[in-house]
Formats: sequence, C-alpha cells, structure tokens
Amino acid sequence: METVQGGVTAPIGFAASGVFCGIKKRGKDLALIVSNRPCSAAGMLTTNRMRAPCVEWAQRILRKGKARAIVANSGNANCCTGRRGEQNNRAMAEEAARLLGIPAAEVLVASTGVIGRPLPIENIREGIRSARGQLKRTGSHSAAEAILTTDLRPKEFAVHWKIRGRVVTLGGIAKGSGMIAPNMATMLAFLTTDLTVGPALLREALRQAVPETFNAITVDGETSTNDMVLLLANGGAGLPPLKKGSPDHKDFLKGVRQVCEALAKEIVRDGEGVTRLFTVKVTGAAGSAEAMKAARQIANSLLVKTMVAGRDPNWGRIAAAAGASGVPFQPKKLVIRLGKIIVFKGGEPAAVSRETLLEQVDHPEIRMEVDLGRGGAQAQMLSGDLTEEYVKINAKYTT
Amino acid sequence: METVQGGVTAPIGFAASGVFCGIKKRGKDLALIVSNRPCSAAGMLTTNRMRAPCVEWAQRILRKGKARAIVANSGNANCCTGRRGEQNNRAMAEEAARLLGIPAAEVLVASTGVIGRPLPIENIREGIRSARGQLKRTGSHSAAEAILTTDLRPKEFAVHWKIRGRVVTLGGIAKGSGMIAPNMATMLAFLTTDLTVGPALLREALRQAVPETFNAITVDGETSTNDMVLLLANGGAGLPPLKKGSPDHKDFLKGVRQVCEALAKEIVRDGEGVTRLFTVKVTGAAGSAEAMKAARQIANSLLVKTMVAGRDPNWGRIAAAAGASGVPFQPKKLVIRLGKIIVFKGGEPAAVSRETLLEQVDHPEIRMEVDLGRGGAQAQMLSGDLTEEYVKINAKYTT
Repeated sequence: METVQGGVTAPIGFAASGVFCGIKKRGKDLALIVSNRPCSAAGMLTTNRMRAPCVEWAQRILRKGKARAIVANSGNANCCTGRRGEQNNRAMAEEAARLLGIPAAEVLVASTGVIGRPLPIENIREGIRSARGQLKRTGSHSAAEAILTTDLRPKEFAVHWKIRGRVVTLGGIAKGSGMIAPNMATMLAFLTTDLTVGPALLREALRQAVPETFNAITVDGETSTNDMVLLLANGGAGLPPLKKGSPDHKDFLKGVRQVCEALAKEIVRDGEGVTRLFTVKVTGAAGSAEAMKAARQIANSLLVKTMVAGRDPNWGRIAAAAGASGVPFQPKKLVIRLGKIIVFKGGEPAAVSRETLLEQVDHPEIRMEVDLGRGGAQAQMLSGDLTEEYVKINAKYTT
Repeated sequence: METVQGGVTAPIGFAASGVFCGIKKRGKDLALIVSNRPCSAAGMLTTNRMRAPCVEWAQRILRKGKARAIVANSGNANCCTGRRGEQNNRAMAEEAARLLGIPAAEVLVASTGVIGRPLPIENIREGIRSARGQLKRTGSHSAAEAILTTDLRPKEFAVHWKIRGRVVTLGGIAKGSGMIAPNMATMLAFLTTDLTVGPALLREALRQAVPETFNAITVDGETSTNDMVLLLANGGAGLPPLKKGSPDHKDFLKGVRQVCEALAKEIVRDGEGVTRLFTVKVTGAAGSAEAMKAARQIANSLLVKTMVAGRDPNWGRIAAAAGASGVPFQPKKLVIRLGKIIVFKGGEPAAVSRETLLEQVDHPEIRMEVDLGRGGAQAQMLSGDLTEEYVKINAKYTT
C-alpha cells in the first residue's frame, strides 16, 4: 500500500473543484466532488442532538447507500436555521443535481461554519454553477481548500495498491480546526475509491476505522453539529464487487484505516492554535470503554494541554485528570509514563532528574501512557496543545 | 442575616494566622486556624480517585466529627507523593497538635499546589511554629492570603444574625484559581461558626449547600486531587445545641448556603485568567441530573468560554454544547435565551438585531438560559471566560 498524490480525486472517475462564492469574506468556500458513474455510499454522522439539515439529508441518502456527488460549503454551518435551513439544504442538492443531470437524492450536502445564520443561497447557487464548470480530475486540492474554515492547510491523503494486476486507489480530503472532539464522525471528511464495494461493506469499513481514527482525536473537546465522514466507491477500477472476508477486503479495510488515520492526524496538527501534538495511551483498563473514558479525560484536560504547550513535564496533571475521569482505579496500581520513562508508580514519583523529565516533553509529538492496573484493555487518543492562539481565534469568531 | 467583616475568624473563639515558610518563592504559604474550645466538624472531600494524604486524613477525622484546628499550606499539594507524603501529612498535624496542646487527631490538614513533589517538611515545621506565635482573633485575612496559589485576591466572607438576643456568626475563607470544577467539594474552603451544632447537622448543612454553590462552579473543568470544604462549629456563642427542623436550624442552613455561595462566586471571579463571569441556567429538564449535565457541558465548553471572553453573542455554540451533552432533547423544543432575550426557539433563530444581541453580552456577568422542553427540573452553573491569560499561567506552572 503506497501513498499517492491526488487526494479525493486520486481514484479513477472522480472529479472535484473549489470556488469562492461569497459565504466567507475571502478564500474558496464551495466544493463539488463528482463521480462519473454511480457509487455506493456510506457515512458516519455526528451524535450531537443539534444536527444540521445536511446531516439529516445525508442520513436519508445513506440509508439507501447510493450517491454520486457531494456539494459542500464552508463559512456557514446552516444549523439551527429552521425550515428555511432545510429548504436551503435541499436547494443546494437540487441545483447540483440539475447541473450534473443526476437525481437530487444522490447528492450529499455538507456545511461547516457559523451556526444560526441563514445560508446566502443565491451566492451558493452561483457557486455551484461555477464549481460545475471547473470540475477537474485533479481538483482535489481545490476542493480541500474550499471546505476549510479556520484551518490553515488543506488536508488530502490517498493510497493505492494492486489487486490482480490492477491499481486500485482510495483517497480523501478533510477539514477540522475548532469544535473538534468527534463522536461517531468528525467535521467533514470525504473519502472516495474506485473499488467496487457495496454499501454494507463500506459502512462496516468506516465503523471499523473511525472509532480509532476520527473519533480518537480532540482539539477542544467540542462535538460539532455538522460532523460527517463520507465514503464513496464508484467501481472505476473495473474490478468485480469486493467479497467480505477476502484478502482484497482486508486490504481495503487497511486502506480505509490508513486514509482515516492520516486525515485525522492532519486535523489535530492543524487544530486551532495547535503547536504540538500529544498521544494519550491508556492501558491496563478493565474494558475498552473505560480505557477511552480515561484517555479522553486526559486528552481534553486544559491543564494537560497547557502543560504540553509550555513543554512543562508537570505529570501530576495527568494523574489528576485520570483520577477525575470516573474510572475506579487504585492509585497505588497506577503507572504513568511520560515519553520513554516512568514518572509515577506504586503511589510514588519515580526518581527522575528534572533534566530527564524536560527531555521527555521536548518533542513536537509528546507521548503519555497511563496503566490503570485493572485489566488488559487499552485505548489511545491524539490531542493538541492549548495555546493563546486558540483563545484569540475563538474570542472573535462571528464578529 | 447581615454580612460582616472577619471571615473565618468572625465567629467567637476562632483565631488564625498566615506566614511565609519557603514552600512558594514568595508570599505567605502556611495558614493556621484554631478554635479555643472543641468543635464539631464536617466536610466534603474531592471525588477524584487520586486523593492527597490530607484528604484521607480528613476523612478519618470527619468520621468522628471532632476537630479543633486546621493547618494548611499552599505551593505544594503533597499528592502522588507516596508513603513519604503520608508521613509528612501526619508530621504537619502532629507539629500543630504539639504546639497547641491538642490531639493530632483533631488537626485537619489541607495542601494545595503542585502535584508529585515532596513537601519541604522542615520549612513547614518552622512555619507552623511561627504561625502558632502569630495567631490572632483578626487573623482571617492573613490565613486567606496563605492558602492562595495563582489566585489574585484572598477570599473571605461572613454573616451574623441573632438567635434569642445573641449574635451568632458564620464565616469562611477559600482559595480557588485553577483545577476548578469541584465535584462534592472544592479546592479549600474553611468555614467556622460559633453556633453549637453537632456533626450530623453540620454534614447535612454542607450537603445541602455545596451542590448548588461550590459544586456548581467551574473555571476549567478540572477536578482537583485536594478539594476540601470544612465546617467547624465551636459553640462559642453560648447557645444550646441546634435542633433539627427548628427555625434556628433553618437560619443556620441559610447562613451556610450564603457563605458557600459568596466564596464560590469569589473563586470563579478570581479564576485563572477570568475576566467575565457567566451563568448557565438549564430549565425544562426531565430531572435535575440531566439539567446539571447540560449546564455543565455548556459551562465548560471552550467555545462558549472564549465567546464570553470576546463578548461575541455566538449563541450557536450554546446550542452545539447542549446538543453534545448527551441529553436527548428535541431540537425543535429547545429555547435559548442570551441575557434577557430569546435567540433560538422552535428550531429557528429569533429575529433579533445584531445590536440587541451585542447588548446581551456587554455585561461583566452574562446570563444564558436553555430550556430543554422535557420537564420541570432545572440546574445552574457559574463559570468564567477563557482568556489567553489562563494559557499563559498554565503553560509554565512547575517550571
């Protein structure tokens, strides 16, 4: 399995584009991704109770498992916008469908940005027309730019491998930045492949990959109203349908996992104000749910995040966050590792010099590991530090 | 019930002092509070699994409900310090007991500061001796100073009222600042009264007051390892024991509630980097637990906190946080109020001008209210904004 250029348009038969239509003040704000033939489709959607109309719309389409295009805008989440919001969402799908000559029921819609403001639907109609005109086989980068909000870099990733002599490709784009603590999905990730895969296997692939990739990252502990991971398979590589349990199926699962992982990591790396990443691995848990609970508490702890920002090996904060997670561990059985060394064990701090401690946090990516001493389950979260920049960005978002 | 000066030494028979003994780099760091006669005692302690030895020690004393002194240090939490930490904690109690001529089993200990470092016990012994020499009937302010870490202001509050012609007094001091999202107690609050109240009624009074005061505040969503609210009653006013259910008992409960509320509010106001307070009231919940769950999610949301910092009426973040709380409300039944006005109702944004919206957040204390439309229960949280100053303070705490 090799990394290739081309992101969401790396697979055969997919084209994309990104344009500016005046939703944001500047920068591209409307993306279109289209397959030149019908696709199977699967997705995972936010678990937030406040769901934008595009999430409801996607749910209906994904139930049938068939889609051919994605139209996405940034700068406005079209959430909490009532009936008008639903109408505008439908209008986006219908306009794209009309121009592409496909049914509106095969056009997925995604929106991201401020909540509670009406979409400038005329700008968007205009934008869709313009995006239709600019569709390119190499349009991934442009589409990746058009779904960004406060992100600084477009996020694309693709892999290819061979099946019986034919090259098959799987790629994707994503946006993240703020309101990132996905639960069942994350802020906009679109994946495509030219494999022939039915909706059931697509769904299963996402269900396997997402919990440990998109759902295992956090920037600020906030689960968005518009989270969405979509996966489209158009069979463009000309292979027969993938069979469950076959070696090809295993490779496919590996590919989905790899693309999800790479995009998820990019989302944290480009999180609002993030300058350093850290992984929180929790081992020795009685079950994977409690492992994740402890990992999540530590990964979202403001004190752990600020300690990472300041390269401060203040591991007591890791202990305090673990203790506040609600997991009933015995403090004397707890083992905490920072970087490569044990810092706390048997209820006592390890004898480690300040210098050695400082070395453990002097990396662009810091590792923390907490062994709960309760069993054999584990979980891992990827998080970013909390810096003054995050506050600057978010203190003035709508104004 | 009238507010009076004097804080924790306002009640008859209590003396206190605060000294510097070299735990912190500068500023007072050791406090002593002593009653001139035996006291009933009650307390509420942190629910964090990682508990400092002083918390374990307090638990043993409070089981018996009898104490006469509190020795507290700032600058070092004496948590995650193993056997040596337990010994040091005991040494603190024993040194104070020896000097005061009382049993060590009647000396409560409290520590706050960095986790995982051994206490400089010789400095502390020296400090206790010096604090013993400086005990004063007007020592509350000095003790309140000595328990601060990154707090900017000492926190004291007291009330008095009359029972059958006699003045009775209830007062307290507290410290807060970071790692503040108390659960069953908060970072160090010491209350005293000269009423005659048995341990059972003291306990009950705290159990009634704490959930809606200390447990209903948050600075950063972090529950400390050393949280502790203590309440001592020495009978100094010369009244017979308080009878459960009597009008005097009701006044006492009111007094405890008032002192807890005032100190809790001071803790948020003086939270790390906090410039503006906001209250989150959740109504229309199916039960008080889910009301609190939603209120807590909103009050701890980084995006809500940064929006308050920036005076940005971006109420969509309130909707998103409520939606992520796990409470299964119907979005169309949700009503969100910002300040005095409705901003979201029936699934749609209310028609409110930008100007009116901006007015709602232009206060030192902002009000948010979310009606879940599910029932009659409610809860309220008090929180502070998140500013760049919080990050600055916490990125370099141990270094």
